[in-house]
Amino acid sequence: MTQLASAGGDTAADNLAGDGGESIAPRPYVLSATAQGPLDADELELLDAWWRAANYLSVGQIYLMANPLVREPLAPEHVKPRLLGHFGTVPGLNLVWVHANRAILARNLDAVFVAGPGHGGPGPNACAWLEGTYSELYSHVPRDAEGMRALFAQFSFPGGVPSHCAPETPGSFHEGGELGYSLLHAFGAALDNPHLTVFCVVGDGEAETGPLAGSWHANKFLNPARDGAVLPILALNEYKIANPTLLARIPEDELCSLLRGNGYDPLIVAGGDPAQVHQDLAAAMDACLERIAQIQRAARDGTDTARPHWPMIVLRTPKGWTGPPQVDGEPVEGTFRAHQVPLPAARQNAGHRAVLEQWLRSYRPEELFDEAGTPVSELRRMVPVGAKRMSASPVANGGELVRDLRLPDWREYAVDVAEPGRTDHEATRVLGGWLRAVTELNPDNFLTFAPDELASNRLQDILTVTGRNWQAEIGPDDVKLDRTGRVVEVLSEHMCQGLLEGYLLTGRHGVFTCYEAFVHIVDAMFNQHAKWLDASAQVPWRRPLASLNYLLSSHVWRQDHNGFTHQDPGFLDVVLNKKPEIVRVYLPPDANTVLSVYDHCLRSRHYVNVVVAGKQPQPDWLSATDAALHCARGIGIWEWAGNRDEPATTPDVVLACAGDVPTLETLAAASILREKLPWLRVRVVNVVDLMRLLPTEEHPHGLPDSEFDTLFTRDSPVIFAFHGYPWLIHRLTYRRTNHSGLHVRGYKEQGTTTTPFDMVMLNDLDRYHLVMDVIDRVPALRQQAAGLRQDMVDARLRARTWTRQHGEDIPEVADWRWPA
Amino acid sequence: MTQLASAGGDTAADNLAGDGGESIAPRPYVLSATAQGPLDADELELLDAWWRAANYLSVGQIYLMANPLVREPLAPEHVKPRLLGHFGTVPGLNLVWVHANRAILARNLDAVFVAGPGHGGPGPNACAWLEGTYSELYSHVPRDAEGMRALFAQFSFPGGVPSHCAPETPGSFHEGGELGYSLLHAFGAALDNPHLTVFCVVGDGEAETGPLAGSWHANKFLNPARDGAVLPILALNEYKIANPTLLARIPEDELCSLLRGNGYDPLIVAGGDPAQVHQDLAAAMDACLERIAQIQRAARDGTDTARPHWPMIVLRTPKGWTGPPQVDGEPVEGTFRAHQVPLPAARQNAGHRAVLEQWLRSYRPEELFDEAGTPVSELRRMVPVGAKRMSASPVANGGELVRDLRLPDWREYAVDVAEPGRTDHEATRVLGGWLRAVTELNPDNFLTFAPDELASNRLQDILTVTGRNWQAEIGPDDVKLDRTGRVVEVLSEHMCQGLLEGYLLTGRHGVFTCYEAFVHIVDAMFNQHAKWLDASAQVPWRRPLASLNYLLSSHVWRQDHNGFTHQDPGFLDVVLNKKPEIVRVYLPPDANTVLSVYDHCLRSRHYVNVVVAGKQPQPDWLSATDAALHCARGIGIWEWAGNRDEPATTPDVVLACAGDVPTLETLAAASILREKLPWLRVRVVNVVDLMRLLPTEEHPHGLPDSEFDTLFTRDSPVIFAFHGYPWLIHRLTYRRTNHSGLHVRGYKEQGTTTTPFDMVMLNDLDRYHLVMDVIDRVPALRQQAAGLRQDMVDARLRARTWTRQHGEDIPEVADWRWPA
Repeated sequence: MTQLASAGGDTAADNLAGDGGESIAPRPYVLSATAQGPLDADELELLDAWWRAANYLSVGQIYLMANPLVREPLAPEHVKPRLLGHFGTVPGLNLVWVHANRAILARNLDAVFVAGPGHGGPGPNACAWLEGTYSELYSHVPRDAEGMRALFAQFSFPGGVPSHCAPETPGSFHEGGELGYSLLHAFGAALDNPHLTVFCVVGDGEAETGPLAGSWHANKFLNPARDGAVLPILALNEYKIANPTLLARIPEDELCSLLRGNGYDPLIVAGGDPAQVHQDLAAAMDACLERIAQIQRAARDGTDTARPHWPMIVLRTPKGWTGPPQVDGEPVEGTFRAHQVPLPAARQNAGHRAVLEQWLRSYRPEELFDEAGTPVSELRRMVPVGAKRMSASPVANGGELVRDLRLPDWREYAVDVAEPGRTDHEATRVLGGWLRAVTELNPDNFLTFAPDELASNRLQDILTVTGRNWQAEIGPDDVKLDRTGRVVEVLSEHMCQGLLEGYLLTGRHGVFTCYEAFVHIVDAMFNQHAKWLDASAQVPWRRPLASLNYLLSSHVWRQDHNGFTHQDPGFLDVVLNKKPEIVRVYLPPDANTVLSVYDHCLRSRHYVNVVVAGKQPQPDWLSATDAALHCARGIGIWEWAGNRDEPATTPDVVLACAGDVPTLETLAAASILREKLPWLRVRVVNVVDLMRLLPTEEHPHGLPDSEFDTLFTRDSPVIFAFHGYPWLIHRLTYRRTNHSGLHVRGYKEQGTTTTPFDMVMLNDLDRYHLVMDVIDRVPALRQQAAGLRQDMVDARLRARTWTRQHGEDIPEVADWRWPA
Repeated sequence: MTQLASAGGDTAADNLAGDGGESIAPRPYVLSATAQGPLDADELELLDAWWRAANYLSVGQIYLMANPLVREPLAPEHVKPRLLGHFGTVPGLNLVWVHANRAILARNLDAVFVAGPGHGGPGPNACAWLEGTYSELYSHVPRDAEGMRALFAQFSFPGGVPSHCAPETPGSFHEGGELGYSLLHAFGAALDNPHLTVFCVVGDGEAETGPLAGSWHANKFLNPARDGAVLPILALNEYKIANPTLLARIPEDELCSLLRGNGYDPLIVAGGDPAQVHQDLAAAMDACLERIAQIQRAARDGTDTARPHWPMIVLRTPKGWTGPPQVDGEPVEGTFRAHQVPLPAARQNAGHRAVLEQWLRSYRPEELFDEAGTPVSELRRMVPVGAKRMSASPVANGGELVRDLRLPDWREYAVDVAEPGRTDHEATRVLGGWLRAVTELNPDNFLTFAPDELASNRLQDILTVTGRNWQAEIGPDDVKLDRTGRVVEVLSEHMCQGLLEGYLLTGRHGVFTCYEAFVHIVDAMFNQHAKWLDASAQVPWRRPLASLNYLLSSHVWRQDHNGFTHQDPGFLDVVLNKKPEIVRVYLPPDANTVLSVYDHCLRSRHYVNVVVAGKQPQPDWLSATDAALHCARGIGIWEWAGNRDEPATTPDVVLACAGDVPTLETLAAASILREKLPWLRVRVVNVVDLMRLLPTEEHPHGLPDSEFDTLFTRDSPVIFAFHGYPWLIHRLTYRRTNHSGLHVRGYKEQGTTTTPFDMVMLNDLDRYHLVMDVIDRVPALRQQAAGLRQDMVDARLRARTWTRQHGEDIPEVADWRWPA
């Protein structure tokens, strides 16, 4: 087995034997007496003991399933058959944790911990167990030898806990799986939490990702008077799986220049001598926290309102520090080979196993755990009390803190609709009026995030009661920027999503408004957050969070600037792949339904709510009363829009629609049918809540088959006009009785520039095409309506020619109104 | 209409009238004589004339549909009814373009231009028309008054061209729609192009995105000896749609610190006086290109092999420069109000229209265009010759340059398979052997990109013939890093994808290997590239590119470290939403089929090929000969795996499978059925090419219904074991005859940690469950096989208990082999 294979190996099974070279175990170290710094000998000894204990427990998690205290010689059956988890980053995480504890105790901080580096789970698990929290939350993992065995055995084991921080991890609100979002979660947590300190360890691998690289700038949205503090600790252990990290391979002055350019004052702590690193890190932590306190004092007493350069720490320590210096003749500690599991054959290979045993003993467990396996009482001196423990902070279990929003009655913001289709409104502008009031009523736990699109998405009414949060310079021509704004705008969907996630995960509420065209940018972040919600719902001590609410506007049917070149409605497909218990998709057709739906979303818990709503003037179909009823049903027959559609009879055709533009075209088609074929029985069904289409057994909102059949009939043709890709409707309905009668028109990929109606026509979702569909699918019409069909073909061509000549819709389309 | 509404307005229709305040048109300017710099009066005058011409043509595109030379007073019907496009960034783009032309002429450069800022299309369109390229490629847009009218009228108009750079734009290889990827495309273009200079304008809005923020580091992969140069020009015009940009609101020294930290030496050019900015920009360009030449000389003659700090320019000029200083009483030039369309009511409002006319005249078109409307010959002095024009560079139409790869015969790398299932191989490791040879045979036009996952995905054989490209420092313990490596590894999926896109778009070949769990990170980039391929196929002068090839490994069924917390197979759903002509998805079940499929992918053109293949040892099912045949068919019956499945009879059940793990479980189920129910007629169908499931009319690879029915029968139960979400199979097959007989088992969302077989069991995709499915769905078995069904339930429970106790699969599963 070559070194390269080992670098890439995922499991011990790939590396059953060493190559015959020597393996060297770490020696127990004695703290050097010459190290200089703020710690006295007692404190230094105590910090180091805690660190050794956490490191011991971390190594144990990776390797052992029995004999946790190594009180008997390590035998093959004590070692797990599959070695997973990553040791490389863990000593750094444990080091920061214990030094953060020192600071919490000294300064009585309220603090939480974010572990950015990948697969660092063993560290926070170990620290939570040392602090007692693990055993409080999981009684089958007590703070004794048996608990230690359980802690070890469950790690990266079937039915156990993952190798990174996850909902199961006490004190974590940051999913450690997909990298890049640690700083965003940290800053999101600090917003509106003036007394909170977030210790955020950023991995140097993670730091290469785009989202992390961009998110250093989150400090431009942190108000030192009103918000808490983030102390970033860049864990520069220099290696990823198989490569060095970029930031470790540029000169230190270049790295510092980069961090200063991002608005930080970095302090460097570097070395491999534990005593000196303890001293230096303690000094750096003291300096940073003192500086943070100073910044906050100056901002809070009004003596300094300039944007501060926040302090941060660069911690350059060896990868796999305190681990085996050499395995199979290759250097390991301080190299990429320490990234994952340094002794991959510890079960099968006696040599590896012996080194593992020496390694474990090098931490001197007999000094750290008593006869029962309980941490010695001395160690408890480093544990803050109760909720001051980072592993027990309620901030990291945001559902414990979340308060209901005060929501104004949305009906008071509704538009008057005496009759359907008489007036037009920009739906999102109407919503903006209500969100303004929501913002006003909830001044410290509700934020709106937008990638420079708030006003473009017509939510600017919010800006009449607040500004945009902006801590950087404000120029003379800038408007609506201020230090305390309740809107966060930055041209990064990743930052909007990540900051909102951090804000929600720590118990607050918010909305992310985004162009539909660009929301795919955060597909992966959505996935991870949805999985967090799903998994955390299965963790008994986790409480439900406020929902993650999207408002997707400038949607694909009215994205006039962008043509078809970089947009699609496929976020809905991504969303609907997640657990049904977690996701909700709403397509309200007009202003009042948007209000009603959003009121529901802001009341809901622990969902991802996706609302797609246009910002262009569109007809008002429903009064507030009707909107409330329709949205409560989620789907319904619009009797007023149909023709001769009586409960006792089956309609000749069902026109179904979901989305504002498809609804408009469907109603226009219905009006043509009513005028031209007055005897035809036409039913119009509008879908607001897309999940109603699913079978009951697949989604909590799913309609029973009997109700579905009542709406869509068992055998009449159904022409379904849909906002998204047509096959999504087929996917949701393929088990339904009348699926074979269903004909869906939706979005199709095109590469051209259009006006709105041209776009509708390119997708064959226009009123004329819908009428043609009806004629083609209702057998009685094939002959009878041949003339009307030809009229539709002609009207379509006329409309299309017009748009290409005039650059706007033909008047008969642009001025069309639902008939009185 | 308030200023806020205007800031967010997308179209003139939102802003039909001004608020009554005064609007001020720009005055024609005289170049100040006092400006100091390298340009003499003649050159300065000429550069400025070209710039004015390009600006004139840009304003014309945004507003006019007739009267292009304003030879008659501007009337409402000359102005487009819907004003789209963005003026704000355009003068900066045009300025850089003409100064680049000066440099090309002076230094005989081969250069291309990347326009990063959003909706900057009018600029490159104007420049291409001035250079004659537009008219050469589009004969209906000649270089005269009629052509100018056509150029204007088509812009952001139905059936015309988009408002940003797109495949229609001569000289562009960068889709300007979704922001953030300009630097990546620029650096990707420069790789292996030693004589190329890429002028890359980065928008300061775009610079806020994560992908852009991370991609400054792409300079750590640019070898000055072997690669070309990128000259980044950060266009700091200070505003986005409705907000200032972050980089404009930090002190200049902080900005420079950031750029230096990213490895650049920035030169600042700032101001609003055209003459002085021309002088300063010319001087800065000269300095940068001189420095680049120096860097390249030193690297190429071997006198300096250290990583250079590449020069770059920060160009701080007013947003909407040369546009109206004031509109409706509000300042516009130099503010966010200049971002889009500064005079939104130019058609309806005489005041706006008069200002527009003065604005157009301020460029003095009578000096720039002759009687016929053709650019005056003087202007042509600024136009490089032929392919030296950036608008005509073949590099930007990569299909013109792409050469076939030299591909070694994959059969020579195939594994021996005398009988199915006797041996195991890691499929991607076998592929790595062949890719090693591909890398060797194509030393200057084939690259492999990986986010630190090359070795983890078992492709490390490539590293026996090349290293990893690394221009930063190399430490003593680093391995396989070198200055000329043909593998690019950086822990950023965005960077891997973007660099590869740039490399492909400029006529080369490559592979992106990624964990399946993390490929959702680039969903939006994939979308945009797929749309580029689609749209460019409709542009007659564009030539087909090499395909974008994904190799997704460490896939969701064997992602042992990661449990279920941040992974899903949904990238396939995203991919299959794109135009069928463009996308291909392959799920080869073993090593030889992976080889055969990948050989096909590297020969293909203008597709996105997604290949999902495991890296863990899995059985070899097919010999090279059988693999070639099976992959050519894309789907087929595995007679050897079925039982009593004769062509003349209909099987009792069809076991279908797609993906390596589903195939393994299906074959294990088939072996149980053969042993326990030897009389049962079982057919096994394996699907390699997922598009074969689609109807012929929906995909070029789609199977005719008759062939589909032959494979899957018209009415036998079909148990389909699928790698991805089960509904994807339903979506692909819902129109097929036997769809109602289809039962799909696939990936389901879970939140837990598992071993491989445990994961298979959690998803009910295990062999025992598949046998139970057969028993439940073949009516004759309900009674007859009740005992076997109970055995399966028991075996499943036994296996599950085993994994939870032992942390590895039960031997009867782990050691299972296809029976001889």
